[in-house]
Amino acid sequence: MIRHIIKTQVFTREFLNEIFNLSREMRRSVTNGQVDKVLSDKLIATLFYEESTRTRLSFEAAANRLGASILSSANARQFSSVSKGETLEDTILTLSGYVDCIILRYHKEGGAARAAHVSKVSIINGGDGKGQHPTQSLLDLFTIEDELGQIDGLSVALVGDLQHGRTVHSLAYLLGKFDKIKLYLISPKNLSMPNHIIQYLERHNIQFVEMEDFSNISEFDVLYQTRIQKERFDSLELYENSKGKLIVTRDIVNKMKNDSIILHPLPRIDEIRYGVDDNHRAKYFIQAENGVYVRMALLKMLLS
Amino acid sequence: MIRHIIKTQVFTREFLNEIFNLSREMRRSVTNGQVDKVLSDKLIATLFYEESTRTRLSFEAAANRLGASILSSANARQFSSVSKGETLEDTILTLSGYVDCIILRYHKEGGAARAAHVSKVSIINGGDGKGQHPTQSLLDLFTIEDELGQIDGLSVALVGDLQHGRTVHSLAYLLGKFDKIKLYLISPKNLSMPNHIIQYLERHNIQFVEMEDFSNISEFDVLYQTRIQKERFDSLELYENSKGKLIVTRDIVNKMKNDSIILHPLPRIDEIRYGVDDNHRAKYFIQAENGVYVRMALLKMLLS
Amino acid sequence: MIRHIIKTQVFTREFLNEIFNLSREMRRSVTNGQVDKVLSDKLIATLFYEESTRTRLSFEAAANRLGASILSSANARQFSSVSKGETLEDTILTLSGYVDCIILRYHKEGGAARAAHVSKVSIINGGDGKGQHPTQSLLDLFTIEDELGQIDGLSVALVGDLQHGRTVHSLAYLLGKFDKIKLYLISPKNLSMPNHIIQYLERHNIQFVEMEDFSNISEFDVLYQTRIQKERFDSLELYENSKGKLIVTRDIVNKMKNDSIILHPLPRIDEIRYGVDDNHRAKYFIQAENGVYVRMALLKMLLS
Repeated sequence: MIRHIIKTQVFTREFLNEIFNLSREMRRSVTNGQVDKVLSDKLIATLFYEESTRTRLSFEAAANRLGASILSSANARQFSSVSKGETLEDTILTLSGYVDCIILRYHKEGGAARAAHVSKVSIINGGDGKGQHPTQSLLDLFTIEDELGQIDGLSVALVGDLQHGRTVHSLAYLLGKFDKIKLYLISPKNLSMPNHIIQYLERHNIQFVEMEDFSNISEFDVLYQTRIQKERFDSLELYENSKGKLIVTRDIVNKMKNDSIILHPLPRIDEIRYGVDDNHRAKYFIQAENGVYVRMALLKMLLS
Repeated sequence: MIRHIIKTQVFTREFLNEIFNLSREMRRSVTNGQVDKVLSDKLIATLFYEESTRTRLSFEAAANRLGASILSSANARQFSSVSKGETLEDTILTLSGYVDCIILRYHKEGGAARAAHVSKVSIINGGDGKGQHPTQSLLDLFTIEDELGQIDGLSVALVGDLQHGRTVHSLAYLLGKFDKIKLYLISPKNLSMPNHIIQYLERHNIQFVEMEDFSNISEFDVLYQTRIQKERFDSLELYENSKGKLIVTRDIVNKMKNDSIILHPLPRIDEIRYGVDDNHRAKYFIQAENGVYVRMALLKMLLS
Repeated sequence: MIRHIIKTQVFTREFLNEIFNLSREMRRSVTNGQVDKVLSDKLIATLFYEESTRTRLSFEAAANRLGASILSSANARQFSSVSKGETLEDTILTLSGYVDCIILRYHKEGGAARAAHVSKVSIINGGDGKGQHPTQSLLDLFTIEDELGQIDGLSVALVGDLQHGRTVHSLAYLLGKFDKIKLYLISPKNLSMPNHIIQYLERHNIQFVEMEDFSNISEFDVLYQTRIQKERFDSLELYENSKGKLIVTRDIVNKMKNDSIILHPLPRIDEIRYGVDDNHRAKYFIQAENGVYVRMALLKMLLS
């Protein structure tokens, strides 16, 4: 029995399978308007030390759908107690006396683990600084499996800022649990995948290739696009030039396999053109919606 | 079947009649503590790009009374996704995958229509910049009909900043659907009703007269007071002078018909003196309360 | 029948007894996961003109546990209506047309009484400036009674900034209703208990002694610690020196009676060392949790 959700490393294929089946069941129940309110006696707190509207609203939607009540905190760093110097541990000790589960977003790596160490109730990591964001990885992987039927054997392109992107790191780790994956790691040279991930891929014999553009696009089953920030570059020219090669346009998309898919953790700015949205391969808004079902599945598994 | 509530122009007299009867039913059920929780399977988001506490809390009260769950966003412009440059359309596409209805307040005219264009779920306009605020108009009109028994044949004074006031514009449009209305348009000269409304009134043969003070007060059935902002005037003296003529005092009120009523969209500053509150004609707090019943009626009609 | 909860003075021993028994009943029901949702038809607003996260979340947890719906306002001073100049009275008149109970935190003394004067629904004072915070006093006193079996005859040390501390003032008043209490008033000289409390204690023949350190620690049944703010002292040296004498360390705690308890309204900074937390006398997180049960009891008594 898992009690806290802190990092993706502990997810086994069996656990993933169970969560994904439960996520599909949740989707069916929402679609039919017949959700069993199994958490109607539960009180759940969202405790966000930095704002992440999408993640918070997605969790709150999931909890609400299951009948739970919510204590919502969008900006815990401005808590009167925090501003007076209260530690994360004291805040958690207090709040875990009020509620049955705490969904925590913390601005520093390790926050979720510290919280789980003292909490009387379940902690779910909603992102901890440069650390992990395990539920984002779950919904990414669920969408791939749900859209393409399986994960083994897929060719997956991770695109954008691979140096700093928390979501692509976690996804790379999780894909390492599957067989015959081929990864295309596509980024500007200065934003390539960090060494510890490269070593992990080599250690697990995962096939990968590092690139700077979409020249192999016809081979992708999944194109996972992410945002590139201007601030990462020495000059605006370098930024425009590097980024320009990695924008998903209608022309690019039409070179993809017919049954491939395009994902994005959102928000997107212009790295996927709006004209792509009505292409049948564009699945990023479905991916966001899946986040609610995956989080419902997690909450149900932990709390009911 | 209406799917979105964007502008008042589409409200027919039949629709208004239906909403008003349903609003009275909602009021009875709240008063008796026996509200049928018909929306207990629904999840509703309030997405406010500018704060409007009264409107937001009134909608959330209405949704809660009907058993719906709420995702509340008081300041969507500070959303992490919006600050990163996400468009309104992308935000709506994402959020409409989480919830069953979105109540939107947007800071620019046309926001609600843009949202309705892409949304998978019902959009209710909670005010869009200089555009419309249709539920405010509905509760204003409901209060008039509910207090005075009918709308046809009434003499209605619209008072204050008629140039910029969104509520008086919408109310003028809606009153145009009724018979034998007489309007008194009372404002400082520099804040008179804009041309497009004047032309609308002429086109629909609605009797109206423009004035700068309360000299005809004994003829009003309804005095609809609004706030005048200092910033609209060239000098403080001009402001004090113009405004002074339009303050509702006890003396003024005593010159009104015995069965006339005073309304105000609130908040009021001093344009209605506090001493007027216990006069039997003062209905502005009942008007605010009616907002909950009218919004319950709308939500029930759209979602159940 | 009490309608509003504004100040502690009106609490009789009978009322306290009733609330405390009901609080224990609430705790049992939460622990067993079998809370009777007696407030499922009620809508409660938290209206906080200054943030107090702990108080607000504790009330919202209590209301949620009983099935009530919540309209939550963490920062009412930034309400659009308040910024336009609306009075507290007008805000309360409006809001009391939306909900069944208002929990008010106001930044100026007397706010709760002003609200109760105009409100159509129950007002609960969640703290009004330098005024009172009656539910904090109730949970403090409940914890003492619940942990030690009774209140009559106890030796209670009130420690810290006794000059400005709202919680110690209210607690001193409430303890005055019990028999054979002995108070140790322990503070730096410049932060001693104000005259009006000293006179109250003398008038009610309550035994008390004023001190500056823990020399009598072996006699305490209850050590009620509070925070001392740097800003209250003329020099950092004076602050460090005064405060140093009043820090609760492991060594200090080991000199206390075996069945004594340590309380703190929280948040604590370093006036109770973290190493004390696992001592069996440390009850401050249980005290915080009790806040939920006491507030459930109050809400149930007022609203059901």
